[in-house]
Amino acid sequence: MNLLLLEEADFIAADRVVLRDRRLKHMQEVHRAEVGDTVRVGRVNGLLGNAELLRLEAHEAELRVELQSAPPAKLPLTLLLALPRPKMLRRVFQTVATMGVPKVILLNSYRVEKSFWQTPFLEPDAIREQLILGLEQARDSVLPEIVIEKRFKPFVEDRLPQIALDTLGLVGHPGDFPACPRAVTQSVTLAIGPEGGWIPYEIDLLRQSGLQPVQLGERILRVETAVTALLARLF
Amino acid sequence: MNLLLLEEADFIAADRVVLRDRRLKHMQEVHRAEVGDTVRVGRVNGLLGNAELLRLEAHEAELRVELQSAPPAKLPLTLLLALPRPKMLRRVFQTVATMGVPKVILLNSYRVEKSFWQTPFLEPDAIREQLILGLEQARDSVLPEIVIEKRFKPFVEDRLPQIALDTLGLVGHPGDFPACPRAVTQSVTLAIGPEGGWIPYEIDLLRQSGLQPVQLGERILRVETAVTALLARLF
Repeated sequence: MNLLLLEEADFIAADRVVLRDRRLKHMQEVHRAEVGDTVRVGRVNGLLGNAELLRLEAHEAELRVELQSAPPAKLPLTLLLALPRPKMLRRVFQTVATMGVPKVILLNSYRVEKSFWQTPFLEPDAIREQLILGLEQARDSVLPEIVIEKRFKPFVEDRLPQIALDTLGLVGHPGDFPACPRAVTQSVTLAIGPEGGWIPYEIDLLRQSGLQPVQLGERILRVETAVTALLARLF
Repeated sequence: MNLLLLEEADFIAADRVVLRDRRLKHMQEVHRAEVGDTVRVGRVNGLLGNAELLRLEAHEAELRVELQSAPPAKLPLTLLLALPRPKMLRRVFQTVATMGVPKVILLNSYRVEKSFWQTPFLEPDAIREQLILGLEQARDSVLPEIVIEKRFKPFVEDRLPQIALDTLGLVGHPGDFPACPRAVTQSVTLAIGPEGGWIPYEIDLLRQSGLQPVQLGERILRVETAVTALLARLF
């Protein structure tokens, strides 16, 4: 936790918060904070700043907050992701938040197991929890938007063309395709497939909606690693 | 598991293996393989190829193996890594194997907690297990070399200059430094610090031994994410 993120409900006055949960525990056990110490804070979807620890008890801490600086810029990107398996999904939420992705669309695909859609990790609170962890890692305060699209074809045919319009549209896909471009200056719409990859029919539809296949070499990466590698290369 | 890696002990003849462990289970439960099916295989530190499933029983499987193709090339890189916390360490072993890093040197640093060196995940068998998982993911067969250097100063002063000689020497470090270069053509020696970063004294010593600080932007990445992002940018 490189930043302590403050929720609306933490505020007891304009510049005062009281913390009682894992953030209190983290201050006590990892930071070993003492009264008078200053910690980096941010307000969820708001500014970053510092907070002074006014009172520290076993069950709660009170801090005086000063927020003044803007969070880091997000990437100019919409990320389409075939729904990963639940365990990977949690880590991917952290990774996209850490890397500065502003919008993720979770998509069905032929090779996404139907059971993956039943995971409790897709509950809004569970998503938010992982996003917060990723933001705290990166010292960002702005939650990415997560959109769930359970039907591939209507999304790709009807809504993707509008999303991809005036962006560099790419779909990561192993095979005889151009290498993923580097250091682009445009906005990007990037789709990353499931374990086992997109099927040809899906690649055809994604192409027709404006995404061109690009590859990252012959090594097959886990979804989380592929997300990081593609973003590090593109931006 | 995109490749089934075969150990010397699996071979009962030049072209026959018998499997009984997690690989058998994986074939049964994930691949749902049947007699006559072909699976991708590789021999640890050897060639890649295919194997035909000759016999499949509850407790063991026999396969006929044909090995003919070379594994993918490794990156021209020596990676120095401040020892990560144990849970992260296991994932980092997988990631470096997947990404094609041929040699990793695990290093002490001021901000590495002493207790991290006691983890059972540093036992040779535990390291090997994670590397194998990473290789299976990437369809590679060649184990990276993992070197443990528990004393920072003698390593950096006495041995690092020789390692970094005739390579592009870099140390990832947040701050007012040049951005990490892209698409380099040379061999690289890259050092990545602990959570919380290198201390100035360490940066000075690394510089004197031939590594120049480079940064990846203002977001602070977990070690695993930083490794992937730096390699995707460099190569």
